[in-house]
Amino acid sequence: MNTPPLAGGAAGPDALRPLLGTVLDALRDGAEARGGPLPAGGPGRVATRLREAAGPVLPETGSGAHEALRTLVYGMAEGAADPADPHCAAHLHCPPLALAAAADLAAAVLNPSMDSWDQAPAASALEARTARELAALVYPYGAPSCTYDSDVSPNGPARSPRTDTPTGPARPLETAPPEAPARPQGNDRPDALVTTGGTESNQLGLLLAREHAHTRHTEPLRVVCGANAHHSIHRAAWLLGLPEPLVLPTPNGTLAPHTLHTALTDLRHPGTPGPPVLVCATAGTTDTGAIDPLPALADLADTHGARLHVDAAYGGPLLFSDTHRPLLTGLHRAHTVTLDLHKLGWQPVAAGLLAVPATAHLAPLAHRAAYLNADDDTEAGLPDLLGRSLRTTRRPDVLKMAVTLKALGRTGLADLVDRTLAAARTFADLIDAHPAHELHSRPTLSTVLFRPAGADDTTVATIRRRLLHRGRAVLGRAATPTGLWLKATLLNPYTTTDDLTSLLKLVEGHTPR
Amino acid sequence: MNTPPLAGGAAGPDALRPLLGTVLDALRDGAEARGGPLPAGGPGRVATRLREAAGPVLPETGSGAHEALRTLVYGMAEGAADPADPHCAAHLHCPPLALAAAADLAAAVLNPSMDSWDQAPAASALEARTARELAALVYPYGAPSCTYDSDVSPNGPARSPRTDTPTGPARPLETAPPEAPARPQGNDRPDALVTTGGTESNQLGLLLAREHAHTRHTEPLRVVCGANAHHSIHRAAWLLGLPEPLVLPTPNGTLAPHTLHTALTDLRHPGTPGPPVLVCATAGTTDTGAIDPLPALADLADTHGARLHVDAAYGGPLLFSDTHRPLLTGLHRAHTVTLDLHKLGWQPVAAGLLAVPATAHLAPLAHRAAYLNADDDTEAGLPDLLGRSLRTTRRPDVLKMAVTLKALGRTGLADLVDRTLAAARTFADLIDAHPAHELHSRPTLSTVLFRPAGADDTTVATIRRRLLHRGRAVLGRAATPTGLWLKATLLNPYTTTDDLTSLLKLVEGHTPR
Repeated sequence: MNTPPLAGGAAGPDALRPLLGTVLDALRDGAEARGGPLPAGGPGRVATRLREAAGPVLPETGSGAHEALRTLVYGMAEGAADPADPHCAAHLHCPPLALAAAADLAAAVLNPSMDSWDQAPAASALEARTARELAALVYPYGAPSCTYDSDVSPNGPARSPRTDTPTGPARPLETAPPEAPARPQGNDRPDALVTTGGTESNQLGLLLAREHAHTRHTEPLRVVCGANAHHSIHRAAWLLGLPEPLVLPTPNGTLAPHTLHTALTDLRHPGTPGPPVLVCATAGTTDTGAIDPLPALADLADTHGARLHVDAAYGGPLLFSDTHRPLLTGLHRAHTVTLDLHKLGWQPVAAGLLAVPATAHLAPLAHRAAYLNADDDTEAGLPDLLGRSLRTTRRPDVLKMAVTLKALGRTGLADLVDRTLAAARTFADLIDAHPAHELHSRPTLSTVLFRPAGADDTTVATIRRRLLHRGRAVLGRAATPTGLWLKATLLNPYTTTDDLTSLLKLVEGHTPR
Repeated sequence: MNTPPLAGGAAGPDALRPLLGTVLDALRDGAEARGGPLPAGGPGRVATRLREAAGPVLPETGSGAHEALRTLVYGMAEGAADPADPHCAAHLHCPPLALAAAADLAAAVLNPSMDSWDQAPAASALEARTARELAALVYPYGAPSCTYDSDVSPNGPARSPRTDTPTGPARPLETAPPEAPARPQGNDRPDALVTTGGTESNQLGLLLAREHAHTRHTEPLRVVCGANAHHSIHRAAWLLGLPEPLVLPTPNGTLAPHTLHTALTDLRHPGTPGPPVLVCATAGTTDTGAIDPLPALADLADTHGARLHVDAAYGGPLLFSDTHRPLLTGLHRAHTVTLDLHKLGWQPVAAGLLAVPATAHLAPLAHRAAYLNADDDTEAGLPDLLGRSLRTTRRPDVLKMAVTLKALGRTGLADLVDRTLAAARTFADLIDAHPAHELHSRPTLSTVLFRPAGADDTTVATIRRRLLHRGRAVLGRAATPTGLWLKATLLNPYTTTDDLTSLLKLVEGHTPR
C-alpha cells in the first residue's frame, strides 16, 4: 500500500476492476448475512458488530485496500436498512437503480468539481443542459421576463393567472400550448440548481426570496407555511436569520386556501403595506404525501403580492407521468420549486434540484473569487459557475441523473412512478379489506398511513420499534390530529402484492396483545 | 429497460457487474481519446462534443442502460480536467485514490441516509467512530468541559494557554502528554461533523459562533479575518445574516498578530464591551498555501475574549505526517476547525469535516422532526442524528474516508502527504534554478506560484488560458500584492521531476513573445 493507485487517467480502470470485484462480493455477502430489510438487535448490537468486523478506524499501519474494502463494505451491507427490500419502507429513502449507482462511480473516478470550468469542462456542460431540461418540465411555458422585478407572481400579464392547466403537455416539451408565449431564450429560460436534496433546495428558495425582498422592503421577509410543511422550512428560516415562519393549521393535511387568505390579510395591519411574504406550499408532504391546492394558493399569492415556493421534493417526479401529472397543476406558477430525484427518481443521494422560471432569477447568488472566476477569464469565455451553488467544490451529481434520463426516457421514468403509486393503492386496498387494520386515508402519492384498529399511540410506536429491533421491517410513523399512525412510504417500484400482504402480517405479529 | 434492476439487495451486485464493466471501458476509452490533462478547444468545443456524443438529455423513449452509460461516461471522461494527470494542477482538486472511489460505489448502492438510524444503522455507527478519530487528531488533549460556557478559549486553566507543542504526538493517540488532563468522555470528547466540503464547514463554524454569541450578547457576531481568508467566510456571513466580515490586510500572505491585536482593540469602543467576535484564521490559504501564525492568533483571541475558527481545509491532513505536523502547532486551540479530505486526502468529493473539541459544542444544531427523532424513540435508544448536519437526507461520505484510513493507516497517508509536499519543493527548486522563471516564494504546503521573469498580469493570464485552450495544462492563477502569478497546486503524490520539468517547458512554449 505504499503507492495506492489513483482512480483516474487511462490506467485507473484497470486498478479499479479488482477493487470493484471485492466491493461487489462484500455487498452480496453482507446482504445475504443480513437476510432481511435491516439487521436485528437494535443500535447497540449493530455498532458492536461493525466494530468487530471493521477493527480500528485509524491504525498506524494500513491493512491494504482489499482487506479494508472487504471488512468495511461487508459491515455496511450487513448493517444496512436496505430500501431494495420491499419491507424497508419507512422514509423517503429510495432504492437506487443499478445504472444510476454505476454512473455515480464515474463521478467519483473523474472527480470533477463544479465550481470552475477548468475543473469540470464536460461535467459543467452536462449540468447546464440537464438542469434546463428538468426545469422545463416544471416551467413548460417559461417565464415572462417582465415580471421578476415587481412583486407580482411569475405569471405576468402575458397569460391568464387562473389557468389551471396541468403542468405541461407530455410531449413534445418544446411546443408551448397555443395560448402561451413563445419559449424564451438565454437568461429568460427555466433553469435549475443542483443541490444536496430537498432541504438545501428549500433553503435556496427562502434565500432567493430573502434577497428579493431585501432590495424592496425594509421589513424582513415573513415565511408563511402550513403545519404540514417540511421541517427544513423552519430550519432554513433560522439559518438565514429570518423571523420564525408563521405556521397555519392544516387539520386535513393540506393548506386550505381560506386559511391562507385570512393569514395574508391579517399580516397587513391597516394602513401598512405589511411585510414581504413568501408562501411555502408542499406537493407531497412527508407525513401523508398530500399535495396542497396549488392553483388556489398561487391565486392567493398573486392577489396578496406574495412570492410562492413549492416544495415538490416528493411529488415533483409525477411530471414524468401522463397519468399522474395533473396532480401538479399550478406548479409552474411558483417562483421556486424544490425537486429531488433521490426520492421518486431512484437516484443514490444526492440528487436535489431547485427550479426557477428563468436563469436571471438566480442573480442574487452571484459571487466572485479571483482564483475561480476572475473578470478577464469570464470575458475570455470561461463559464462562471460559482453562482450556481452555495457550495464551492461540488460533486457532479448530475451525471447519474442524466444517465437515468437517457437510459429510461420519460416514459420509462413514468412507468416507475406509475408502478410505485399503484403499489400504494394496492396496499390501501389490502388494509381497507382487512378488519383488523385501519386506513388513515386513500394515498395521493405512495405514502400509506395505517394501524391496527383501535391502536393507541404507544401501541403504534411499540410496533414500529419491535419491527426495527427484530430486523423484520422498517416502517415510519406519522403524528396526525387523529393520533399516531404507522407510515409505509413505498418507493420500491417492484413491490408485489405478496410483499404487502406479508408486511401487514408482520405488523399483526408484532402488535402487543 | 421496462424493469431496470435495483442496485441493492443480494441480487444487486450481479446486476451491477456488467454495468460497471461498461463504465470502466468508457472511462478508459475517454481518457485515451482525451490524451492529456483536459480537452482542447475551450468551452464551446467541449459542449459541442458532449452534445454530439450524448444526444438528447431527456428522450421520450430510453436508450437502455449500457448505451446511456457508454455515451455519457465516455463524454465525461473525454471532456474531463483529470487531476490524475500531473499537468492538471490548478486547484485544490485532487486525484482520488482507486480504493476510495471503489468504496464510494458501496455508498451509492446501499444508499443509507444519515438523518435517522433506521435509514443508516451501520453507516451511522461508522460515522460516529470515524468522526471522533479524526477529531482526536485535531484535539489530542480533548477540551476541558468547564470552558465552553464562558467567552474564553477552549484552553481552560487546566493547561498553559501558551503551550506551543505540535498538535498531538504521532502515536499512540490514546495517550495524552503528561501535562494534559485525562481524555474526557462522552459529550466532552472531540467530535466532527461530516460536510460537503470546506465551504459548508466554514459556514457551520460561523453558525456555531453566531448561536454562541446570540445567547450572551445583544450585538450581532462580528467576523474578523485576513484578506487571505477563503471567500466562503464572506459568503457564510452573508448567508447567516451577519454583518460583513472585518477584513484585515495580509500583505505577506498571512495574518500578522499585531494587525489582529490592533483590530480587536479598535472593535471595543472605550467604555463598551464591544461586539462578540469570531477570528477566522487559515491553515493553508487557497492562493499560496500559507499558514497563519496559529499560536499567536490563539493567544490574541484568548486575550480579547474572541472565539477562534481555523480553516484547515487544505493544511489539516498534515496532522497525519510526523514530518509536517509541527506546522499546525496551535490548531487544537481553535473552537472549530475545518478539515477536508477531498484535498490532501485523495477522496472523491465530498469529504469535508468540521471538528470541535467536544460533542456538547454542537448543541445549537439540535433539531426536532417528529417523523425522524420523536422523543419516545430517542428515549427508547434510537440515536438522534438530525443535529449532526443542516442537511436532512445525507450520503455516507464517511465510508470512503474510513476505507482509506484503514487501508493506508496513518503512516500511509503521511507518506502521500510527504510525497506531495516534496514535489512542490522540487518544483520550486526547478523554477529557482531556471533564469527564465521567477518564483514567488518557497512553498509551505504544495502550492507554488511562479511566472516567466518579468511577465505582466496580462501575460500571465494569457499563458494560463492558452494552456487551457490547447488542452496542454491546467494551471491556476493567484493575484498578490506583487501582481498575478501562475499557480501550481500539486496534489498528485506521484508527480515526478520529469513531469515538473515538462510543465515548465509547456509554460515557456505558451508564453507570448
